[in-house]
Amino acid sequence: MTLPTEHRSLVVVITETALEQTLLRDFDRLAVRGYTVSDARGKGTHGVRDAAWDEAANIRIEVICSRDQAESLLQHLQTHYYADFAMVAFLQDVEVVRPDKF
Amino acid sequence: MTLPTEHRSLVVVITETALEQTLLRDFDRLAVRGYTVSDARGKGTHGVRDAAWDEAANIRIEVICSRDQAESLLQHLQTHYYADFAMVAFLQDVEVVRPDKF
Amino acid sequence: MTLPTEHRSLVVVITETALEQTLLRDFDRLAVRGYTVSDARGKGTHGVRDAAWDEAANIRIEVICSRDQAESLLQHLQTHYYADFAMVAFLQDVEVVRPDKF
Repeated sequence: MTLPTEHRSLVVVITETALEQTLLRDFDRLAVRGYTVSDARGKGTHGVRDAAWDEAANIRIEVICSRDQAESLLQHLQTHYYADFAMVAFLQDVEVVRPDKF
Repeated sequence: MTLPTEHRSLVVVITETALEQTLLRDFDRLAVRGYTVSDARGKGTHGVRDAAWDEAANIRIEVICSRDQAESLLQHLQTHYYADFAMVAFLQDVEVVRPDKF
Repeated sequence: MTLPTEHRSLVVVITETALEQTLLRDFDRLAVRGYTVSDARGKGTHGVRDAAWDEAANIRIEVICSRDQAESLLQHLQTHYYADFAMVAFLQDVEVVRPDKF
């Protein structure tokens, strides 16, 4: 069996819970068509200016989109939030079976 | 150091909370040997017939299996649920160190 | 647009909730710089000695690091926990935009 799949990008953003509404409004403006949010807790360096560790309430947001849109999203996050917020974002390749949805 | 790893498929299914028990029974019938479920919330297009957005309680299910089994799973989901439920499913390649477990 | 990204490894560990503090102490000793923990529930074979199924409170831990560190982590988990605990761990390639953070 070989299922016909298409490749998309999965963007995962892990950041402070306080940013949730702000980010979701950003996503709407950036024409993101869907996202999934789950609650998490984390520990890591807090922004680039502050190397202190903190353990805090986090959210984990997932978005599936085109590669171009994924890069725009990451660029947007880097420009607006990386310096001042605890944020980790990464991009992965995924295969989907109904690509028209993303 | 080069750890001996083997490749498997990770299937991630994000869908309506109400489908949890139904899907897990399906997985048992499809001989899935293990899964992980976490709670999430999401926004996205609702099925193919309804383009309206809704924000709802979701679950996120992960299964690690062979490529063949992953394709059967996705095929099953597409056939039975894609038209009528808010569901996103995708497939990724992962490396594991104890492949006999999956 | 082509965003400059660098590749890192994402290690995902899904295991019994009771192991959380022990694992996070291990991660600190192994110089892991950050992690994300979320709650989950799962079903799967319990260790290698016991093929019985159990459905239990689990955690899902994510770490982004270098390939070398990811392999050390998996090796550590395999050596110390695989025989006696319900644990699934896998490794994936991810792209990040601020590699100095990981």
